[in-house]
Amino acid sequence: MPNPRSLVILGAGAWGSALALTATRSQEASRQQVQVWGRRPPYIEEAAASSSLSVFTDLSALADALKAASLGVVAVPTQELRSFLTDVLLPPHLPLLLTSKGLELQTGLLVSEMVASLGLPNPIGFLAGPHLASEVRKGQPTRGTCAAQTLEWAQTMASAFHGPMFQLTPWADLIGVQVAGALKNIFAVASGLLVGAGVGDNGRAAFLTLGFGEMQIFGQALGAQPETFMTQAGLGDFMLTCYSPLSRNFQFGFKLARGEHPDPRAPLAEGFFTAQAIQKRAVSLGLKMPALDKLVHVLAKPAPPLSEIETLITETRS
Amino acid sequence: MPNPRSLVILGAGAWGSALALTATRSQEASRQQVQVWGRRPPYIEEAAASSSLSVFTDLSALADALKAASLGVVAVPTQELRSFLTDVLLPPHLPLLLTSKGLELQTGLLVSEMVASLGLPNPIGFLAGPHLASEVRKGQPTRGTCAAQTLEWAQTMASAFHGPMFQLTPWADLIGVQVAGALKNIFAVASGLLVGAGVGDNGRAAFLTLGFGEMQIFGQALGAQPETFMTQAGLGDFMLTCYSPLSRNFQFGFKLARGEHPDPRAPLAEGFFTAQAIQKRAVSLGLKMPALDKLVHVLAKPAPPLSEIETLITETRS
Repeated sequence: MPNPRSLVILGAGAWGSALALTATRSQEASRQQVQVWGRRPPYIEEAAASSSLSVFTDLSALADALKAASLGVVAVPTQELRSFLTDVLLPPHLPLLLTSKGLELQTGLLVSEMVASLGLPNPIGFLAGPHLASEVRKGQPTRGTCAAQTLEWAQTMASAFHGPMFQLTPWADLIGVQVAGALKNIFAVASGLLVGAGVGDNGRAAFLTLGFGEMQIFGQALGAQPETFMTQAGLGDFMLTCYSPLSRNFQFGFKLARGEHPDPRAPLAEGFFTAQAIQKRAVSLGLKMPALDKLVHVLAKPAPPLSEIETLITETRS
Repeated sequence: MPNPRSLVILGAGAWGSALALTATRSQEASRQQVQVWGRRPPYIEEAAASSSLSVFTDLSALADALKAASLGVVAVPTQELRSFLTDVLLPPHLPLLLTSKGLELQTGLLVSEMVASLGLPNPIGFLAGPHLASEVRKGQPTRGTCAAQTLEWAQTMASAFHGPMFQLTPWADLIGVQVAGALKNIFAVASGLLVGAGVGDNGRAAFLTLGFGEMQIFGQALGAQPETFMTQAGLGDFMLTCYSPLSRNFQFGFKLARGEHPDPRAPLAEGFFTAQAIQKRAVSLGLKMPALDKLVHVLAKPAPPLSEIETLITETRS
């Protein structure tokens, strides 16, 4: 990428805003301009105070900004990404750093697979890690993984955000990082289910360990490198997500175990649908994922009793 | 081992008692007698109700029981183990299943290394997993790993406890399981430190991920198999211990970050001393463990400020 650089961040929700502020604190901050586009006026009061950060909502201005950009950073919710990328005119050579975790639920595709299915020729990267947006926004110390098809691209993209308080390791496995970012949500649902049912901390750690192993099996079948699951985007994000009681996925599992009949669509508990999509894909790949199978079975009940939830630990064949 | 079997459990604290009850619920329960020996009258009211479980405190009766035993299960606190094993007359062919996690702090040895240093010729196994004693006692669903020098020994020893609610996977890597059981305590101290200082959940997951990686490096230098760290005794116990706010190790770190000057000796925060012992051994092995080094540096301060604790995330070179 040239210097000075022009970053355009697509999406001004909590995550896009946090990333924009992070870019203004990066090692490259003095040499880059950051523009944030959002459908609604973005949630960044700090923008007024920084000459290198600007925000806008105009869709025609977005096309111009992208034409002049050296990196596009996509912070649009995963389930809205396809229609967004179809609507926006992306210059074909603009490198895109994806930051939306999870699967496209309708198709079961990883985000990079969905981008490929649209025929977009842009170089692709993926940023992930244990990244609660609220902490990143405040500049609390954080580490993460920035993956791309090549290590060179990963390094270039990472440098737009890398700084003392937000450190990124460049990584060359785009698939593994995305698999980890999608499948952790499944096990966060399981974590909530086990806590809600009072199965205990032993059983919870046991099931999460089985789940982590199956995540690796699934990832490797898709071509992921085994070491990717030991990075911040792998183990780090898995632990954060599964042990964070505030996530929608955990909350959905917790309420389901309490017999509260939560709706997985609102608020969206992605892990619930991801579990079904991954199971389907695992079957077509001929993979055995008994912990996932058992979880999908339990999640199919509208109010699974404790005796049923316990079978996650007692009846999963490993 | 012959059937009917005679199990002698050495140590009647919370863990020995939980294991004794587990043995009476195992798949082999109807074919095994369980005797629990403790210095103090053991904490097992249930013993009176079960004809296959008995408890005793007499040291001379212990020698006789061991002579007739088919498996000795050692549930004595790790730091008392050397003097205990020196005092008790162990028949040389009696297989011993060790269950005391952690290092011998005075020597920096793994428990199996300490047993070898005593010249004991007994076959050795090691039982570990995410095992809060209180949950195991109640029969809540649990999984774990039973390691020995050979898979056959591991299977035989596991069968004394394995049952629907307490499932054990036999495993042939004795070293890896012990390394995981010792080093998790170090990172539980770090977890408490980071939570106590308010560094945030992102940073905590990030440091634990670095620590888990260094645990693998250290283990492999000692001859552990990489896959061992993905078992219940590896990842499972690591997650349980690091995310459990009630452990002594977590509490020590938490109070240290709050400026409360806790004493690591009482109650014993093993992770504090384990960190120093592992660092010494890593140096002698020529290993690089930058996260551990940084942690030992921070733990050397009587009241490390937030700015110092943050360097665990920001200044560890990975």
